[in-house]
Amino acid sequence: MIKAGIVGGTGYTGVELLRILVLHSEVEVSVVTSRSDAGSRVDATYPNLRGLIDICFSKPEIDELGTCDVVFFATPNGTAMRMTPALLERGVKLIDLSADFRLKDPALWEKWYGEPHLCPDLITEAVYGLPEMNRESVKTARLVANPGCYPTATQLGFLPLIEEGLISLDGLIADVKSGVSGAGRSAQVSALMSETGESFKAYAAQGHRHLPEVVQGLEDVAGKGVNMTFVPHLLPMIRGIHATLYAKLTGSAPDLQQLYEDRFKDDYFVDILPAGAHPDTGDVRGSNRCQIAVHCPQGGDTVVVLSVIDNLVKGAAGQAVQNMNLMFGLEEAAGLKTVALYP
Amino acid sequence: MIKAGIVGGTGYTGVELLRILVLHSEVEVSVVTSRSDAGSRVDATYPNLRGLIDICFSKPEIDELGTCDVVFFATPNGTAMRMTPALLERGVKLIDLSADFRLKDPALWEKWYGEPHLCPDLITEAVYGLPEMNRESVKTARLVANPGCYPTATQLGFLPLIEEGLISLDGLIADVKSGVSGAGRSAQVSALMSETGESFKAYAAQGHRHLPEVVQGLEDVAGKGVNMTFVPHLLPMIRGIHATLYAKLTGSAPDLQQLYEDRFKDDYFVDILPAGAHPDTGDVRGSNRCQIAVHCPQGGDTVVVLSVIDNLVKGAAGQAVQNMNLMFGLEEAAGLKTVALYP
Amino acid sequence: MIKAGIVGGTGYTGVELLRILVLHSEVEVSVVTSRSDAGSRVDATYPNLRGLIDICFSKPEIDELGTCDVVFFATPNGTAMRMTPALLERGVKLIDLSADFRLKDPALWEKWYGEPHLCPDLITEAVYGLPEMNRESVKTARLVANPGCYPTATQLGFLPLIEEGLISLDGLIADVKSGVSGAGRSAQVSALMSETGESFKAYAAQGHRHLPEVVQGLEDVAGKGVNMTFVPHLLPMIRGIHATLYAKLTGSAPDLQQLYEDRFKDDYFVDILPAGAHPDTGDVRGSNRCQIAVHCPQGGDTVVVLSVIDNLVKGAAGQAVQNMNLMFGLEEAAGLKTVALYP
Amino acid sequence: MIKAGIVGGTGYTGVELLRILVLHSEVEVSVVTSRSDAGSRVDATYPNLRGLIDICFSKPEIDELGTCDVVFFATPNGTAMRMTPALLERGVKLIDLSADFRLKDPALWEKWYGEPHLCPDLITEAVYGLPEMNRESVKTARLVANPGCYPTATQLGFLPLIEEGLISLDGLIADVKSGVSGAGRSAQVSALMSETGESFKAYAAQGHRHLPEVVQGLEDVAGKGVNMTFVPHLLPMIRGIHATLYAKLTGSAPDLQQLYEDRFKDDYFVDILPAGAHPDTGDVRGSNRCQIAVHCPQGGDTVVVLSVIDNLVKGAAGQAVQNMNLMFGLEEAAGLKTVALYP
Repeated sequence: MIKAGIVGGTGYTGVELLRILVLHSEVEVSVVTSRSDAGSRVDATYPNLRGLIDICFSKPEIDELGTCDVVFFATPNGTAMRMTPALLERGVKLIDLSADFRLKDPALWEKWYGEPHLCPDLITEAVYGLPEMNRESVKTARLVANPGCYPTATQLGFLPLIEEGLISLDGLIADVKSGVSGAGRSAQVSALMSETGESFKAYAAQGHRHLPEVVQGLEDVAGKGVNMTFVPHLLPMIRGIHATLYAKLTGSAPDLQQLYEDRFKDDYFVDILPAGAHPDTGDVRGSNRCQIAVHCPQGGDTVVVLSVIDNLVKGAAGQAVQNMNLMFGLEEAAGLKTVALYP
Repeated sequence: MIKAGIVGGTGYTGVELLRILVLHSEVEVSVVTSRSDAGSRVDATYPNLRGLIDICFSKPEIDELGTCDVVFFATPNGTAMRMTPALLERGVKLIDLSADFRLKDPALWEKWYGEPHLCPDLITEAVYGLPEMNRESVKTARLVANPGCYPTATQLGFLPLIEEGLISLDGLIADVKSGVSGAGRSAQVSALMSETGESFKAYAAQGHRHLPEVVQGLEDVAGKGVNMTFVPHLLPMIRGIHATLYAKLTGSAPDLQQLYEDRFKDDYFVDILPAGAHPDTGDVRGSNRCQIAVHCPQGGDTVVVLSVIDNLVKGAAGQAVQNMNLMFGLEEAAGLKTVALYP
Repeated sequence: MIKAGIVGGTGYTGVELLRILVLHSEVEVSVVTSRSDAGSRVDATYPNLRGLIDICFSKPEIDELGTCDVVFFATPNGTAMRMTPALLERGVKLIDLSADFRLKDPALWEKWYGEPHLCPDLITEAVYGLPEMNRESVKTARLVANPGCYPTATQLGFLPLIEEGLISLDGLIADVKSGVSGAGRSAQVSALMSETGESFKAYAAQGHRHLPEVVQGLEDVAGKGVNMTFVPHLLPMIRGIHATLYAKLTGSAPDLQQLYEDRFKDDYFVDILPAGAHPDTGDVRGSNRCQIAVHCPQGGDTVVVLSVIDNLVKGAAGQAVQNMNLMFGLEEAAGLKTVALYP
Repeated sequence: MIKAGIVGGTGYTGVELLRILVLHSEVEVSVVTSRSDAGSRVDATYPNLRGLIDICFSKPEIDELGTCDVVFFATPNGTAMRMTPALLERGVKLIDLSADFRLKDPALWEKWYGEPHLCPDLITEAVYGLPEMNRESVKTARLVANPGCYPTATQLGFLPLIEEGLISLDGLIADVKSGVSGAGRSAQVSALMSETGESFKAYAAQGHRHLPEVVQGLEDVAGKGVNMTFVPHLLPMIRGIHATLYAKLTGSAPDLQQLYEDRFKDDYFVDILPAGAHPDTGDVRGSNRCQIAVHCPQGGDTVVVLSVIDNLVKGAAGQAVQNMNLMFGLEEAAGLKTVALYP
């Protein structure tokens, strides 16, 4: 059994990790930390876990976490990088669901996250944990930077087009929409139901932290610069991300449907819908799947890719477990073979 | 492997059966019928099942269904009773998620369901499939009448009080609330999001079909007449039932918390919350659990029981699989050990 | 023009007062206070008011508020009683939307609100502003205690039955449900959309502050003691209260439909629906109406009253304006003749 | 008083017309037709109108409608063109909320709406009723084609950029999102709350009927061809449209904020938000306003315009009344000075 620890267990990605891991046949969750709830039972905070986990939240201590085989950081940005060196030293494998190790350029990280990075050398070592791009590197990683939710849906959607060099890299557009669980489980007026229910708005149109992450990933694939406009929106619902992606074909179009199906035919968690379909976030709710459809409206030269995930699963905790499975030589889908909760 | 058939696979209870059964290690779904969608792939209608089921809907034919070990009816009322005799004859075990075999009195059935019952003799044989009341009978049943959603939450909530004879049976009140998935997947104005979203109303205050079912069950336990007022309401959400139950204690109150915990200590799917708690439908979403709390406000003689389930799981498909497990000698929780999807 | 001030303008009852008052032909809003937002434009916080109000939030100062003809308190409990004496002294009429002057017994107030009342003498003077009960007293009041949201829906629903002495006063049940805007516009995890969307739960089953308020009002009418069980629930929607009320008839039932219609025939804002109907909160959304239906299920001796309001309008700001109209000799419905926003 | 008739009064645009018109001081609604509900009271179908309208639905008859000063068509596409000639002959002014007279090219109409147009000559006469583009023509029109909901939000958003020739007309992108009330009040599975709640998806990515309408309007303004990709999405909420519009600047950017403020300074119903803002559909809910913000992310050459309306008001019934006001020489905002229902 793999002994797993979760740092920051009271947020939505924390409880989602628990939802998945308590049923994972190869894992035992031995530590769940929370500064605020230390000492109280995990299932007192999360009654959906009653009978499935028998431990209390503890304070985050390197010594206790150091007994784990793997530690997940489900913490606000800036926390993981403070604990990472000491835990790596103790031989613990780390999967960081926050943004601390996603950007390869420490200066860029500082610009978007507002403080200097504390272990820039580890940035280099960290593997960006999008298995559909970096599966082999993940398998041997000690430290995985789990991708952001928007970046997961956006990169998977653009990947085949960019790998094949089919589109102009100047002027990509990502119109992305997220459910409110993406805002986390902290007290804030802007995420109240009275504010977000029956309402829809864009935010951060001037620039969102996930933009440099997406651009970095796509530039790696393209081998050259990518220019993207990225506008996030807040959906009046809890779970789900829908990325609507626009690009210009640079030449005559191949069969895009076939291209997408071929590209992901060995990726269990990426499902290319039949031609003409429109993926629905409701069909991936609670599952680790990304469903994608690709369109060329009116046969023109604009490609529209529709890509949906559950932001808490494939966009966070599910992908983290997928990475863990790879890092420990387990079946990639272990513990993640669930069916989306429709309706 | 148990070969399972589903009659009426295009409704919400049908797809919910599929969601559970495709991951059940002892079951293979071999037939899913739908008059309207016969010939088309199941996963074309339900993209959440893509990659998990490889068959097409077929027309409901006794011969094909007769090859199954168990057939679930996820049909409108009045359908199951037309096919039941022929299937029983072929040795198929039947679990009816509709109301055809729930009421023991054919005259009462006719009154509430508007047509004469076609096989009143089988009513007698049918076992009412609330395992927490009738577990042993279910194990040996050929024909199980799967309880309604409201009746499941309501009976489980009242059960300990009535078994112990603690409350007045005259004047029970069940104020029950359901998500809109209870209205099914048929085209109707009253279930449109524009009608039901951001709105709340009671319905059928003059009398709902689930009232006689609840009363029958509680009278069986009480051994005498039960008088109940039962008012259902429609919640602006998809899944979940919350029953708020009111009764008058007839004498000095025992420790109700202890009573409830003891009563259900061997029932895997009934979870009594700690004293003072309030169950939330969100904590049982997608799971087969019933969570219950019991209160005596201000120490008075009125007991308030709060009982929540997911109407499509413990209130329908999950309970049906629980019954199937019992009928086939499997572990009662096989295929049902999931964690509720919170948030 | 009546000069109106609003203390506590950044909460939902505050902005709802503004929504109504900026279009009220006899009122000019001259002061809106907010400690946190003082100095910033009101329409910067509330873009729905752009072009309709041209002032900034100010700090609450007796001198400035003292220039108003009427001041509304849309503040947390405990604030109004601190400012009331000074403002009354300056001849300002006061309408308190908080709970400070609702309970007539200072000891009871202290028990439920957790601090001693600071001006118990003014409690006596304050008029409980439910116009359908106390219209004449409101007209001459200097200080109106605007009723709570649940108490408005509950008292209007029980009123005819109690006035006519038709029901047992022992064992009344009020199963009440509210949208989340009732929890206010403050940062709190429990009111996040991720917590309250797609979920339903009871709360405060052991005792809610609105219970003593309801009981006080009904006992006034009954002239004797009233025993009530009152269980509030949180609806996954923003606006609306639905009270489902249960009582036992003590004798032969008169024509309840006629009784209700007669009782409220002169009350513009109470609308008795036709026999057999079920009011929907969606049909009073944004309006000052209370819609009520009365049922005797199966012709028994239990009366079920269904009563709906918009918690922010008839349950708060609309009723406050209705009271203001009465206090200033205006038409009772001035500024309140709107149509509910359906769908 | 203007005598108004509504053809097709049982749909959402019909009831929304009623919501506005019953409070309009210059209008009396004298006829509301509905084939299905003829003979029953309007307020029996729409309890939010109780006490505000005293008539019954009638069958649509030219003779009765011919007594009106103005008739609104709130009908499915293809109905208005069948009644228009006879009503114009009787001197009735017509406002068609359906699509019958929106497209100027009968062949294009036939292509998108699937049948030949029956009165192509009247297409020429019809005025496209977007007052912010065509105010003067609307004033003298006999027949107004009321714009679609998406086209209203999209055209208002692009207008200043195209009028000033600032953007490339090749490759415009409109990523548009609508609440489900846009799907109307007809029984259909795809608009059930169980299907649309907690879910988000695109639809008609290959081509939506509103695309040619938008293109026609923008080409009129541009005086040359416009190429646009238009992808609609369905929001899990009832009311509201959000258009996210993308265009490439062709040269050095002027002060776009100033440009937008100037362009609409005389348009009561278009509100340009301060620089950096993000409009929220919740701030226009129930009002006839369009709120717009304009961004150039990271100072690049891609303009992002965010434009929100209430699809049933500025996107349908409110705009129709705005047009009526212009046609009858009333104040343009008569009957439409309401405040959006936030929260």
